[in-house]
Amino acid sequence: MADLELIQGILASAETKILLLVLDGVGGLPVEPGGPTELEAAKTPNLDRLAAEGVTGLHQPVAPGITPGSGPGHIGLFGYDPIRYQIGRGVLEALGVGFELEPEDLAARGNFCTVDAAGVITDRRAGRISTEKAAELCAELRGIDLPGVEVFVEPVREHRFLLVLRGPELVEGVADTDPGREGVPPLDVVAEGAEARDTAGRVETWVNEARKRLKDHEPANMVLLRGLARRPDWPLFPAVFGLRAVAVAQYPMYRGVARLVGMDSVEVGPGRDELLSALENVWDDHDFVFVHVKDTDKAGEDGDFDRKVKVIEEIDGHLPRIMALDPDVVLVTGDHSTPAALRSHSWHPVPVLLWSKTARRDGVERFGESHCLRGGLGICRSDDLMPLALAHAGRLTKYGA
Amino acid sequence: MADLELIQGILASAETKILLLVLDGVGGLPVEPGGPTELEAAKTPNLDRLAAEGVTGLHQPVAPGITPGSGPGHIGLFGYDPIRYQIGRGVLEALGVGFELEPEDLAARGNFCTVDAAGVITDRRAGRISTEKAAELCAELRGIDLPGVEVFVEPVREHRFLLVLRGPELVEGVADTDPGREGVPPLDVVAEGAEARDTAGRVETWVNEARKRLKDHEPANMVLLRGLARRPDWPLFPAVFGLRAVAVAQYPMYRGVARLVGMDSVEVGPGRDELLSALENVWDDHDFVFVHVKDTDKAGEDGDFDRKVKVIEEIDGHLPRIMALDPDVVLVTGDHSTPAALRSHSWHPVPVLLWSKTARRDGVERFGESHCLRGGLGICRSDDLMPLALAHAGRLTKYGA
Repeated sequence: MADLELIQGILASAETKILLLVLDGVGGLPVEPGGPTELEAAKTPNLDRLAAEGVTGLHQPVAPGITPGSGPGHIGLFGYDPIRYQIGRGVLEALGVGFELEPEDLAARGNFCTVDAAGVITDRRAGRISTEKAAELCAELRGIDLPGVEVFVEPVREHRFLLVLRGPELVEGVADTDPGREGVPPLDVVAEGAEARDTAGRVETWVNEARKRLKDHEPANMVLLRGLARRPDWPLFPAVFGLRAVAVAQYPMYRGVARLVGMDSVEVGPGRDELLSALENVWDDHDFVFVHVKDTDKAGEDGDFDRKVKVIEEIDGHLPRIMALDPDVVLVTGDHSTPAALRSHSWHPVPVLLWSKTARRDGVERFGESHCLRGGLGICRSDDLMPLALAHAGRLTKYGA
Repeated sequence: MADLELIQGILASAETKILLLVLDGVGGLPVEPGGPTELEAAKTPNLDRLAAEGVTGLHQPVAPGITPGSGPGHIGLFGYDPIRYQIGRGVLEALGVGFELEPEDLAARGNFCTVDAAGVITDRRAGRISTEKAAELCAELRGIDLPGVEVFVEPVREHRFLLVLRGPELVEGVADTDPGREGVPPLDVVAEGAEARDTAGRVETWVNEARKRLKDHEPANMVLLRGLARRPDWPLFPAVFGLRAVAVAQYPMYRGVARLVGMDSVEVGPGRDELLSALENVWDDHDFVFVHVKDTDKAGEDGDFDRKVKVIEEIDGHLPRIMALDPDVVLVTGDHSTPAALRSHSWHPVPVLLWSKTARRDGVERFGESHCLRGGLGICRSDDLMPLALAHAGRLTKYGA
């Protein structure tokens, strides 16, 4: 893997355009041993043509055996080492609900939980209360006043909520109050270093007040906090890669991760045509467009092999419209595998195809896991794909004289 | 590669069991160009079935071109980066003879050597004196009294011995006295930093006394010391990977390396049936069992291609008995290659198969070097195998939300 500084140091200017098409969770597994995966079962003449004309492989989103969440999965595709560049839970939660974090905000992931009369946690998820109920409780918690600090409490899903503290003197370094198990009380609010003591004191005040206000709302009669963090201050994608970049995505999480690295983003309505029209609208003014398709992952999470196959086939049918934009480099891949057989994200490497006029063909003529295993990219790292895309786009000069 | 902290941070609990079967030095080379390797020549229907149902590849024990000793070879398989986690020579020597090091012991590898009248080394190995002779000399050296320090001197093999100093004030940081060549005197005992001066003084006293006592024992009339070190204080395997782990091995070295990372170990008699019975005995009470087979390596070191083939076939014949234990994940590999053609360990990547219900099959139907080269694991690092085994055992959760 080449690091971001190395890449930034060898950028060349070019008028080329790169398309990154992410089919979320596209990697899969067979239902029956020896059978095809979802991608292999799908009829994909257009993807197959790109695979045949381009170069293929598999990418390892984080590392062998590691199942990535959406954050690390996309951070890798954007060219950042997902182990070095970690996003705090609170920040991810904010991205997921489309909350626009300011640089000095502290964001935490909150759980409503159940504690007994002695204050011991009996259910870390408060029986997975409904999102509607959580919204009511969030409204209640918004009534807590912290002098000098603006507080935001946003429902996420079921028992999960987002807590954001906004104030000039807040710093990172407050430990989780979630002990990660039941049968013990929530952890005290503790500063990990002296400089976070004042911030920890404010968080403690908020937690104590929340406890009082939730007392009679069993099962959701207490809160747990995790991953209190600022949005990270990373090298930004447009500067590192020299690209005017934009995310075209229907879910706030994916626009959020893209904005975190400095990409533009556009909100898109729920239909496929709206996604494609949005892509067409941003095309002229950008050098790099990241298009995110969620339905492959959703079908995988639902354990619906056939629906995942259909989504892949449907996207394949739209490829001529996409290729009509005349991109110079096309990357098609997923941020991780979501095999319907497992009903969840998995650690299996993800098929990838890179199409460009400078691709060295590898004899692979189908876009599928077993075909890509014979591909010219081998089993690469997710963060190798951006330098490859730049190279094929004529946007990198020599390294060393 | 994911680091140990990352892995420990995403452990999930599960009731699954992992078997690591190490065929020491299993990787090989053909005798005639174009011929089969030892593993390819062996008839291995059971290993082939596991390869067909699982996923295969080759692992690089340390790094391309690097021939590992037994220590780094196993440390990698146990999931530790063998370059970051290095075992001192003295500690390895102790493991090899089954000497139980206490945390504050200092252990050194010793050589008996020959010096001339001027004190210049004429043979660093004292003509490779017999192990019996060395045992006599070790007994003589045990008579040396170091105030406040308990001293152990154990014969290893031929001219090699183990020196262990046990005392509360001993520290690391004493340089080797072995200059690594002949024609010069042994190096003075030197402290690498001020804090090791007192320890160096004690070692110097011991070396001077050893010189006096060996004076008339030519060719073994002097000693050389290397790698004076404590047993390392590493993150322990059971905590890092969340596994009740045990080593089933017939040689002290392999039990020793396993104990170094906190595994249990059981002593096993010399026969194959004793090895398998020991495996069966520990199975119920452990989540991870490391079984070590030495004979593949021995045959390779002896340059005996046919015997190595026979050992592999014999082990293959026992696989149904092993699989009857109903493991969830099976890893079969070696700690390095020991091609009979080279009569020594080598740097060649080592075939590996990972069998589990969640394996994404790769079309490989034989367990052999050339077949594994087309496998779905690609050419991976040795320390990638533990995270993969954990993932397939359902023992890792998502990384990042």
